[in-house]
Amino acid sequence: MTSRNDCAVRDAADPLGPLRDLFALEHIDREGLIYLDGNSLGVLPKAAIVRVREVVEQEWGVGLIRSWTAAGWIDLAQRIGDQIATLIGACPGEVAIGDSTSVNVFKALHAALALNPGRTRILSERINFPTDLYIAETLARERGLELTLVEPAEIGSHLDDRVAVLLLTHANYRTGQLHDMRELTRAAHAAGAMTIWDLAHSAGAAPVDLHGADADFAVGCGYKYLNGGPGAPAFIWANSKHLERMDREGWRQPLSGWLGHAAPFAFTPDYQPAPGILRFICGTPPVLSLAALDCGVDTVLAANPHGGMRAIREKSLALTGLFITLVEERCAGHGLTLVTPRDPLARGSQVSLAHDGDAYAVMQALIARGVIGDFRPPDILRFGFTPLYTRFVDVWDAVDRLHQVMTSGEWREPKFSIRAAVT
Amino acid sequence: MTSRNDCAVRDAADPLGPLRDLFALEHIDREGLIYLDGNSLGVLPKAAIVRVREVVEQEWGVGLIRSWTAAGWIDLAQRIGDQIATLIGACPGEVAIGDSTSVNVFKALHAALALNPGRTRILSERINFPTDLYIAETLARERGLELTLVEPAEIGSHLDDRVAVLLLTHANYRTGQLHDMRELTRAAHAAGAMTIWDLAHSAGAAPVDLHGADADFAVGCGYKYLNGGPGAPAFIWANSKHLERMDREGWRQPLSGWLGHAAPFAFTPDYQPAPGILRFICGTPPVLSLAALDCGVDTVLAANPHGGMRAIREKSLALTGLFITLVEERCAGHGLTLVTPRDPLARGSQVSLAHDGDAYAVMQALIARGVIGDFRPPDILRFGFTPLYTRFVDVWDAVDRLHQVMTSGEWREPKFSIRAAVT
Repeated sequence: MTSRNDCAVRDAADPLGPLRDLFALEHIDREGLIYLDGNSLGVLPKAAIVRVREVVEQEWGVGLIRSWTAAGWIDLAQRIGDQIATLIGACPGEVAIGDSTSVNVFKALHAALALNPGRTRILSERINFPTDLYIAETLARERGLELTLVEPAEIGSHLDDRVAVLLLTHANYRTGQLHDMRELTRAAHAAGAMTIWDLAHSAGAAPVDLHGADADFAVGCGYKYLNGGPGAPAFIWANSKHLERMDREGWRQPLSGWLGHAAPFAFTPDYQPAPGILRFICGTPPVLSLAALDCGVDTVLAANPHGGMRAIREKSLALTGLFITLVEERCAGHGLTLVTPRDPLARGSQVSLAHDGDAYAVMQALIARGVIGDFRPPDILRFGFTPLYTRFVDVWDAVDRLHQVMTSGEWREPKFSIRAAVT
Repeated sequence: MTSRNDCAVRDAADPLGPLRDLFALEHIDREGLIYLDGNSLGVLPKAAIVRVREVVEQEWGVGLIRSWTAAGWIDLAQRIGDQIATLIGACPGEVAIGDSTSVNVFKALHAALALNPGRTRILSERINFPTDLYIAETLARERGLELTLVEPAEIGSHLDDRVAVLLLTHANYRTGQLHDMRELTRAAHAAGAMTIWDLAHSAGAAPVDLHGADADFAVGCGYKYLNGGPGAPAFIWANSKHLERMDREGWRQPLSGWLGHAAPFAFTPDYQPAPGILRFICGTPPVLSLAALDCGVDTVLAANPHGGMRAIREKSLALTGLFITLVEERCAGHGLTLVTPRDPLARGSQVSLAHDGDAYAVMQALIARGVIGDFRPPDILRFGFTPLYTRFVDVWDAVDRLHQVMTSGEWREPKFSIRAAVT
């Protein structure tokens, strides 16, 4: 059996250990809180405190409109995009930042359908994150296409010549399953389909190699493992071969706003798309949120001298593996079932457990004991592990408290089963 | 001739004068700067310094994911929407906040076309703000519709049974002309057309009465006269009669993201639009930027005990009127022409001057003398007046410096004609 001391020893030897100091965790630690929800909202980077204050008080307050050039607001999104590119196997100039993930799914779907006309289906998983499905469903209805939703294991058998686009989230928000991007992209291409990868739960937490997989489009979220703050702007990537074709054909995305114009400050009445990925930009980005995102991405880049994404992935698997082992050792017989794949290659940076009684109440009782994960209906307890700040002792303590919740049966107390409007 | 002292006397008697203290203007004042670009980026409200810091350090840093409910992030956009509603003649529950103005123009156009099918034209002004035109142009191409762009005076004569939607900006970004919303909406309806009003340059600066005009849709910008900070989220409004019809027919907008779902936290795979205006919400909003917008809107609401929008409008016209008078008195004979309508009813809160030599260089020379307006190609000098913080002496000093720039001819110095990448 792994002891808490074993965990402390692993923390002491962890090459990423020093990076925890980049985050504002003093209060969390003092509260005795264990935060396993960085897959929903990443922890505040200390640098963001100073940076956002500077953007508000100096750049907005003093620089005012001059800050678009003097403080570099106009280039900020592109600079962050180039940094995210290094985390996802993309090249500089291929990632655009702005809008929400949902809006970027919309843009990517339009682009993929434009490049692959004449087919009738958008294929996705039934358990894909709902916003991806909602955007696809509406577009499919509008175009008279079919949105085909299947189980993860059935994707391959549904890739046929009807499929225009395969729309998947790389790491599933519910199960934590990590798809084999390279293999599924290969299979999609063999069937003549385009791929759109939603990297919301993998960018910054798992290895992503878009060019290596020859993927077509990708979108991702700024506020999960990229630690960009609540509602941080999202990103979109397109394979340069598609961008070159779009340039040749003058293709425009439907959200053809002024900042995606080839010459936004010429204020001409007719639209000319900016070259490459810049055509996917629409309106003016929320600069305060963008500045926080910049600091969040920096925390992931800070791992580079310590092994970078390889080290992050290694620790991620060690954390999730330890959590699985400890739950099975210490919480057996309490109706908890592992949902996340045991195979490390098929696992994101989260572990999901199903509970056959009431997952909601169990999570509430666990939160009352200071372990923050979250509940996803109908029966999922979800725990996210961020290698930049989650320690091995945190995993040990979390399972210890889960053990207390389960053995005491305290989750059955009525107060834990009352659902708030938002869970 | 109006003297500077006359202006100081007017400032002393200004009922809105005390509101200037709500803004972080100490540095601007110390610098001797006169900021006449609040129509591009409003000045920082002091409250936003404290509020954004609190959102970052406490709500994000300490509250983390819990802040969606505990700090009310989930309701924040709706609360701000209800406040903006009071400034534009709308009712609570009719305004949704999120995304950029460009994205909201896209949503409004889709909605208006859905409600008024079978017609072939979108009608707008050639000098409408480009992003509105770009979004409309792309949608028109996709639908096989015609985007008809006309001069302001020709709008009425182009309203016929081919027009599905009349898309106008209430106060023109270039000329400062304020359209008669009631009359144009009446004319549009008489021709069977829907109206979309972009309030970017009027919300918070000029009287807007959407219900009074029986308008159909409106969108607006958070970072101009609403002082919401760089790239603040935008808003969208729809007439409740249309919202009721959308509810009955289950109409969905194309950007059908998860936060516009009837039950976002049920995570069901199929989309059901939220009722009313909430269906226009798409993804997760940028909370830091949203918090700043909240403070910005509060500065406008702070005028309520001092006469509210009526007092703001009265002072706005006094400021722009004074500017026009002083420019004509003091800067005649230097090639400056008034572009903005002299008629107060047809004027927003800005004054635009054309310069027949080089408007760009004149503006650069003026900025070098500490008066910040902006240049809009090809020949426009643009000055915005925000009654909440612009003083009558500011107007006097600005014209005094413009007079110096013109009489000295210093704008002809080569350094002022070199254009930066962004102007």
